[in-house]
Amino acid sequence: MGIITLLTDFGLTDEYVGVMKGVILGINPKAKIVDLTHHIPAQSIRAASFLLKTSYAYFAPGTIHVAVVDPGVGSDRQILAVKADGHYFLAPDNGLLRPILDEAAEVEAVIVSNPKICLAQISRTFHGRDIFAPAAAHLSLGTPLEDMGSSISLEAMQHEETAREEQMPEQLLGQIVWVDHFGNLVTTISKDGLEMFAQGRPWEDMVVHVQGGEGLRILDTYSEVGRGELLALIGSRGFLEISVNMGNAQEALYAGPGARVTVSFSK
Amino acid sequence: MGIITLLTDFGLTDEYVGVMKGVILGINPKAKIVDLTHHIPAQSIRAASFLLKTSYAYFAPGTIHVAVVDPGVGSDRQILAVKADGHYFLAPDNGLLRPILDEAAEVEAVIVSNPKICLAQISRTFHGRDIFAPAAAHLSLGTPLEDMGSSISLEAMQHEETAREEQMPEQLLGQIVWVDHFGNLVTTISKDGLEMFAQGRPWEDMVVHVQGGEGLRILDTYSEVGRGELLALIGSRGFLEISVNMGNAQEALYAGPGARVTVSFSK
Amino acid sequence: MGIITLLTDFGLTDEYVGVMKGVILGINPKAKIVDLTHHIPAQSIRAASFLLKTSYAYFAPGTIHVAVVDPGVGSDRQILAVKADGHYFLAPDNGLLRPILDEAAEVEAVIVSNPKICLAQISRTFHGRDIFAPAAAHLSLGTPLEDMGSSISLEAMQHEETAREEQMPEQLLGQIVWVDHFGNLVTTISKDGLEMFAQGRPWEDMVVHVQGGEGLRILDTYSEVGRGELLALIGSRGFLEISVNMGNAQEALYAGPGARVTVSFSK
Repeated sequence: MGIITLLTDFGLTDEYVGVMKGVILGINPKAKIVDLTHHIPAQSIRAASFLLKTSYAYFAPGTIHVAVVDPGVGSDRQILAVKADGHYFLAPDNGLLRPILDEAAEVEAVIVSNPKICLAQISRTFHGRDIFAPAAAHLSLGTPLEDMGSSISLEAMQHEETAREEQMPEQLLGQIVWVDHFGNLVTTISKDGLEMFAQGRPWEDMVVHVQGGEGLRILDTYSEVGRGELLALIGSRGFLEISVNMGNAQEALYAGPGARVTVSFSK
Repeated sequence: MGIITLLTDFGLTDEYVGVMKGVILGINPKAKIVDLTHHIPAQSIRAASFLLKTSYAYFAPGTIHVAVVDPGVGSDRQILAVKADGHYFLAPDNGLLRPILDEAAEVEAVIVSNPKICLAQISRTFHGRDIFAPAAAHLSLGTPLEDMGSSISLEAMQHEETAREEQMPEQLLGQIVWVDHFGNLVTTISKDGLEMFAQGRPWEDMVVHVQGGEGLRILDTYSEVGRGELLALIGSRGFLEISVNMGNAQEALYAGPGARVTVSFSK
Repeated sequence: MGIITLLTDFGLTDEYVGVMKGVILGINPKAKIVDLTHHIPAQSIRAASFLLKTSYAYFAPGTIHVAVVDPGVGSDRQILAVKADGHYFLAPDNGLLRPILDEAAEVEAVIVSNPKICLAQISRTFHGRDIFAPAAAHLSLGTPLEDMGSSISLEAMQHEETAREEQMPEQLLGQIVWVDHFGNLVTTISKDGLEMFAQGRPWEDMVVHVQGGEGLRILDTYSEVGRGELLALIGSRGFLEISVNMGNAQEALYAGPGARVTVSFSK
């Protein structure tokens, strides 16, 4: 239990992330800390949730994932420490973890409240440093969840209305949830969702529309279309993405998070 | 003595920071290196100084803090290696460390000059790689300060006119020294400075003005004002900040580093 | 063999780099991972090649350098694992490594093809995670090159037309290959190339022109010209750079990668 991942909307301009690492290493000098990303759009719980859900399983079981996208810091929102399917998670109780927990086979969760696993002085605005970092460090040293606070059920946790695919009789509805560094538009429509929707019909008959624009085929690789042309494919996260071969789909379509995406059959 | 922090104005676009880490690990493969930030505005000694001073104590004693904001690289400016209050610091002798050293109880400092703790070939433009990184690695291996160069007194060091709060009879004067990722405007006015200025008068009677704009109250949390409204509060660094609840104070006020901030009593 | 460096064009907005680290640490929990840079311009093999070549030797021998700038991902391009002059390299077979290998004394190279050193499921778009990361981790655990795939000769590898200095009778021709964080314009003209061109003639008689603009002298340090003035110097990478003392040469000259640079003698 030595790896701790950090996912925040803090950016890297400030010393915030570095200071969190200082606090962690002060408690567990052997912790291995990995930055997942600190460039979640400010206070976008939905984006944080999506990226964490599609990436945590690439880490070894026992890894502690700290996700601080926390518009409610300083209010009475709670902080959760969770064990789910062999991984640990620390996050505000604001719905960020729900998509992961809803699909986990085994969930054990507590509300972090033990002052012994926090810094002595807790600010009103930087719980990443004062609570999340020391709690993660203590977890990595083997502190059991039950020593961190009282247990909470899945039902008692907050949840956001998360964006998922929605299956209508004749079309599958989703939206763009993330735009990557290359301008690929990542949707909420999963490969599994597409398979259920297709019900055995051939994928080459499916057509993808972003905000009612031109219909795109779902292909296997960028190079199946010409340079600069649009296509859809199952991205590396297992979700439908809209891309441009050797180009930037965000710039081509002027579309971003929240844009509506539909899949239907052309025949 | 295994943790080394790095604070520079190098950005992360180049390989500069990665190469410094390569040099450090080549000398001490067990060093733990933490990026504090590499996004100090180019050559802003004042911003570097402020961030280092407000963050170093979150690291364990014995940590080595390397700060390379160094407009004088290649000139005859000196490089300092300092032990202060249990932490080590490496920085150009350009005033960057002064605010820390002025308040430290115990200071031991040398001018780095021993070629054995530098790379064999020293460039004129990248002392971060050629001197700071290897010197930090040698420090982390236990090389004593006195083996790094000859001692220097606090009085003999350079100092910048650093921005601090200034107490006038009827108002406290400061300025904005840092703008964080969320657009919070961090001032040079410390919580302690405010307490001295208040002399027991109630904080709710204090009014904060940025460049003569509207008067702001000093509150405890963002959520005490409506969404999109301005407020002042003591930020997580222990200094007065101007913020917008769920918004961006820099954009709201068009103010940045150097802007004048005053605190006075409304009654 | 425990240090792994990463150089990509992935940026840091996404979780891509973090996930690669998760995969590496899942296989070799003791690996030390250093980010060289993730801000190579998208798909710029030339920039990646230049930065890797000028920085790898600052790491200890045995270091594994992973370079993923990979416009051909998903096509039939190969992935190379190479040992050259005591360092290991993993990169697509797209010319990225050629400038390093062409000058190495000893080269041993294989095409990565052993599925046991890859993830069980290999996506079409993210070989950084599915092949490069696990292959690097296995290398760091001591897997010999010959167990990773069949050997390939230097001649059989792809090569890009890389930009190098070209020596004409009366002038040395090069181009800008990189613009650093400070706006310094880094050229393909090496210190060695300049020395061969000079053939003993004095450096102070050399004049540098960027895209036919004003002639610049090659000096030793920024401070030899006034604040805001242009100069040329040998940068810390050992290549000619165009800079502005206390300023930004890119902004001063509106020049970027690909811009033509010439050196000639004024007498």
